[in-house]
Amino acid sequence: MSWQNKVLRVDLSTASCTVEALRLDWAQAYLGQRGLGSKYFTEEVDPRVDPLSPENKLIIATGPLTATSAPTGGRSSAITKGALTGAIAASNTGGMFGAELKQAGYDLVIIEGQAQAPVYLWIRDEQVELRSAEALWGQSVWQTEPWLRRELGEPQAKIASIGRAGEIGVKYACIVNDMDRAYGRSGVGAVMGSKRLKAIAVRGSCGVQVRDPERFQQAVHNTMAVMQPSPVRKRFTTRGTHNMMDVTNRFGALPTRNCRDVQFEGVASINADAVTLKRRSDGKPSLQGNKACFACTIGCGRIATIDPASPLVNGNDPEGADRARYRPPSGGLEYETAYAFGPMCGVDDLDALNYVNFLSNEQGLDPISLGVSIAAAMELFEEGAITLADTDGLELRFASAEALVRAAELTAIGAGIGADIGLGAARLCRKYGRPELAMVVKGQEFPGYDPRALKGMALAYATSNRSCCHMRARPLVDDFANVTTEGKAEMVKTTQDLVAAIDSSGICVFTNAMFPSEQLAEMLNAACDGGWDLQRLHRVGERIWNLERRFNLAAGFSKSDDRLPERTVTEPARGGAGSGQVADLSIMLNEYYQLRGWGEDGVPLAATLDRLAL
Amino acid sequence: MSWQNKVLRVDLSTASCTVEALRLDWAQAYLGQRGLGSKYFTEEVDPRVDPLSPENKLIIATGPLTATSAPTGGRSSAITKGALTGAIAASNTGGMFGAELKQAGYDLVIIEGQAQAPVYLWIRDEQVELRSAEALWGQSVWQTEPWLRRELGEPQAKIASIGRAGEIGVKYACIVNDMDRAYGRSGVGAVMGSKRLKAIAVRGSCGVQVRDPERFQQAVHNTMAVMQPSPVRKRFTTRGTHNMMDVTNRFGALPTRNCRDVQFEGVASINADAVTLKRRSDGKPSLQGNKACFACTIGCGRIATIDPASPLVNGNDPEGADRARYRPPSGGLEYETAYAFGPMCGVDDLDALNYVNFLSNEQGLDPISLGVSIAAAMELFEEGAITLADTDGLELRFASAEALVRAAELTAIGAGIGADIGLGAARLCRKYGRPELAMVVKGQEFPGYDPRALKGMALAYATSNRSCCHMRARPLVDDFANVTTEGKAEMVKTTQDLVAAIDSSGICVFTNAMFPSEQLAEMLNAACDGGWDLQRLHRVGERIWNLERRFNLAAGFSKSDDRLPERTVTEPARGGAGSGQVADLSIMLNEYYQLRGWGEDGVPLAATLDRLAL
Repeated sequence: MSWQNKVLRVDLSTASCTVEALRLDWAQAYLGQRGLGSKYFTEEVDPRVDPLSPENKLIIATGPLTATSAPTGGRSSAITKGALTGAIAASNTGGMFGAELKQAGYDLVIIEGQAQAPVYLWIRDEQVELRSAEALWGQSVWQTEPWLRRELGEPQAKIASIGRAGEIGVKYACIVNDMDRAYGRSGVGAVMGSKRLKAIAVRGSCGVQVRDPERFQQAVHNTMAVMQPSPVRKRFTTRGTHNMMDVTNRFGALPTRNCRDVQFEGVASINADAVTLKRRSDGKPSLQGNKACFACTIGCGRIATIDPASPLVNGNDPEGADRARYRPPSGGLEYETAYAFGPMCGVDDLDALNYVNFLSNEQGLDPISLGVSIAAAMELFEEGAITLADTDGLELRFASAEALVRAAELTAIGAGIGADIGLGAARLCRKYGRPELAMVVKGQEFPGYDPRALKGMALAYATSNRSCCHMRARPLVDDFANVTTEGKAEMVKTTQDLVAAIDSSGICVFTNAMFPSEQLAEMLNAACDGGWDLQRLHRVGERIWNLERRFNLAAGFSKSDDRLPERTVTEPARGGAGSGQVADLSIMLNEYYQLRGWGEDGVPLAATLDRLAL
Repeated sequence: MSWQNKVLRVDLSTASCTVEALRLDWAQAYLGQRGLGSKYFTEEVDPRVDPLSPENKLIIATGPLTATSAPTGGRSSAITKGALTGAIAASNTGGMFGAELKQAGYDLVIIEGQAQAPVYLWIRDEQVELRSAEALWGQSVWQTEPWLRRELGEPQAKIASIGRAGEIGVKYACIVNDMDRAYGRSGVGAVMGSKRLKAIAVRGSCGVQVRDPERFQQAVHNTMAVMQPSPVRKRFTTRGTHNMMDVTNRFGALPTRNCRDVQFEGVASINADAVTLKRRSDGKPSLQGNKACFACTIGCGRIATIDPASPLVNGNDPEGADRARYRPPSGGLEYETAYAFGPMCGVDDLDALNYVNFLSNEQGLDPISLGVSIAAAMELFEEGAITLADTDGLELRFASAEALVRAAELTAIGAGIGADIGLGAARLCRKYGRPELAMVVKGQEFPGYDPRALKGMALAYATSNRSCCHMRARPLVDDFANVTTEGKAEMVKTTQDLVAAIDSSGICVFTNAMFPSEQLAEMLNAACDGGWDLQRLHRVGERIWNLERRFNLAAGFSKSDDRLPERTVTEPARGGAGSGQVADLSIMLNEYYQLRGWGEDGVPLAATLDRLAL
């Protein structure tokens, strides 16, 4: 119950699609989605595998609450060895795709091997087939989705696909679903591209059964009663995640110009207020409204339009110079996109940010990694390491909206300097001889939280299993109040475990600040066998965390990778709450290892693995 | 069950003590403590009464969870018409006194009339008597408590008493219990003094019964499971409320020099870190540890010592020049005390702050009102409105630790300029011809949150029924994130109602950020008849809020009193998140009235009163 008890296995090398029973014992131990997908993945894939080889696998996994009426119950994860990072990746998405897949009857889809020529996967309940995608190869996500719906005669098909970035192996290519949601980070789209799998289209009509429908309905009702009046929920609805920009800027934690600075003087031109007030040159508002995922009552997403008359959005558009005016309204700027294209590149031009955001969804690029990689290229250029010869004459300087736009366009198609930017900041900076200019941890680019003022986030960045991430722990509220390393190790450890459980359940981690996790336990317990309570959720989360860690250690990572970029530990923050301070992990990291039951070398002790039945 | 079903009525005019049954119908409608006490008070007292007349009453009220094992279940309230404000006062305290009173068998003690000569009330379960306090009159709280325990032969007696400030009618005198906890605000101690009641001593052995002990134990267990791992709980334990000072200062919401400024350059000398590191001249640490109230697992209180060698703490000490060296360790600085004596007076001398804090507890002064009144006096002095002739030569300037200490000493005994400072900032500034320099709302002094940057707090200040207060609504977390007036009215309204319910339950409002109110409902429901759930708590809270409002309107307050001091609405904040901004209530206040179901004149509509069964 709640699980569908079915796994779809697709071997692209042999073009075979088979169905097997779900390992229910694993579901009891790892819940679903990120946890259960990681269990299957680590059981089946050698940690030393090349991410882009046929031996790597890509698992799309739903959770037990996916496609139920649990608020925000539309989440799914893509688990693989990340092309960008070489670490275990679990990229979560919202939208409608995951719920449709679950309703087609599958908890997981395991994709293995490599097709000889481009294909797409078409799932209609029990009817599953691989079809040629030759006609789609080279097309953007925004062309692929409508094309497939027409081709299949299924206007309601939900689609996850890669754009050109995934096809050509941009290291941080993502898998986009429902036009503007994405399995975003770590290069899961490059893995999909390496398998020559262009898209998955799905239509499901099986429905989902919960264990005790009456009790489940009551649990959902109880959860909504707490969630809907929550001020955090309301802020997400009315202001979106973009609201955070004023907060981090004020606090001095808004990474600016490749982390040279922690506050951005141009915030007022690109913050949530600016987006709300923005009008296009035809006088219409740029922002059209909210966008909510399956079963979501928050609606933190935004529907925006871009200005067809902006001189920036024509020139070298990979979709052709006239494409801009035909683009439909789509997902607007969120905090991370606005940060990465804005302050991190020193750009305060909202038209440029909007356009590059559209481009990211259209061509399937992780906007965080794209923005930070461009920022690194800008600093390399300003330092003279990248020259005009490398850029074919493009002045790749901080603050230049034109440079941002052209660099993004080139990256999407792998042309010129864009081919290097598509390697990600770490490989880019190594190539140009200045590795210290890459704002990355374990090869993945920084989200919009500078670790000098935010002490808990510093530890969260350093220890995140999927490489640098702001969503794998929740120390932020405490970080804004307490600029101290004291107490952070426990907070990071505890919330990492809790988030791992939430990410495995089928609901959105944003709910964490809107209702207590007891409510999640109550819903799970009504939906699934197993006697779910808060304690068990924490235990499952801790098990997942250690499973991921063990994979990464076997893949070649070690304690020496639990670190932050040199700049953040040697150049003090200029201004804000952490003014004059650098990030310092020394004490926190040891505390954290102890709390985790890991040795001083960062390796889980045998007793810890025993305790967690690993 | 959970209520003791007994009210003790003490008529000081006739020296009679009688017991009556609790109105259980009122308990069902108003819960206990603040709500139930206010119901009794408003039923029995004419709103137009002079607060210091025998016709005013003073009610000490416990809640249904007081003296149970509910975490922080040691709270009680003092309800009266405030001597400082003329508004309904409900001052809440922790410590041990309230729980002891409940264990003696009483939900409420109603004190009425006026004794002919000083008395104290001695309650030992059913044995209740009034005894002469002639020997105690003129003594401090810290002399009264040990004296009474010796006299009564009851080392375990719990005591609430007034110091000299309450005897001489300092407008913001408080009632101190357990040496350093207090029914703090609005001048409830002056009311007690006007009745010539020096102290209440109590010893209780009746215990408290809950409705379903097993279920209650489980509910407490469930609550603790959420509360103990809470990062907010941990911060309160390790850093105390004082932690807030760095936050408000950084944000630009730390009222400084009578609100001329919103950030204080001397914070590093007096913040939580400074207190932790502080050593006395004998080399010993000033801070000795935590202090927890009855059944509290937070322990946000601090036990501190003062430095007997400090030149500041001898001179004119009301207890005699040698007293300093005999003072026992006692309650240390908390955020509000540190703010009021520190930034608000521009003083960065930790010895001075520590000493004046001790003095406040010892002589029974509300430290917030004392500090802000001294700050007003300092500005009057700097503006030339108060002269050296008025101060007997004391240079009453901002930043002077000496001026702070001497002014506090004089206020405690009503001598010289201290007699005027003891009137409170509003009356003081009126007397010296500069009413606009009083940082008050409805006659009560500002807590440590400047309303220019904190938009929700601005509305909370303006609408608080017990006059200016930071504890009657909980907009802070949102305020720090969102410097906007949008959405604040609803947040203030909702949390005012919720806080009213918490303040009526017997537990501490600090728990609000540590566990969801569902847990409170679960505990209440196991402890008491009535089918308590979250919805009912909100409804009871809203009823209490309207009851208080109606009393204040009948007492002569009107919409025109829902306002902030001129300075905060005309002089923009200099620095921080609200830089260049003033406080602006116009839109929020109308929204708030609408949400409350009040007319444009701020008067509850008949339909609203009907809906709430008022």
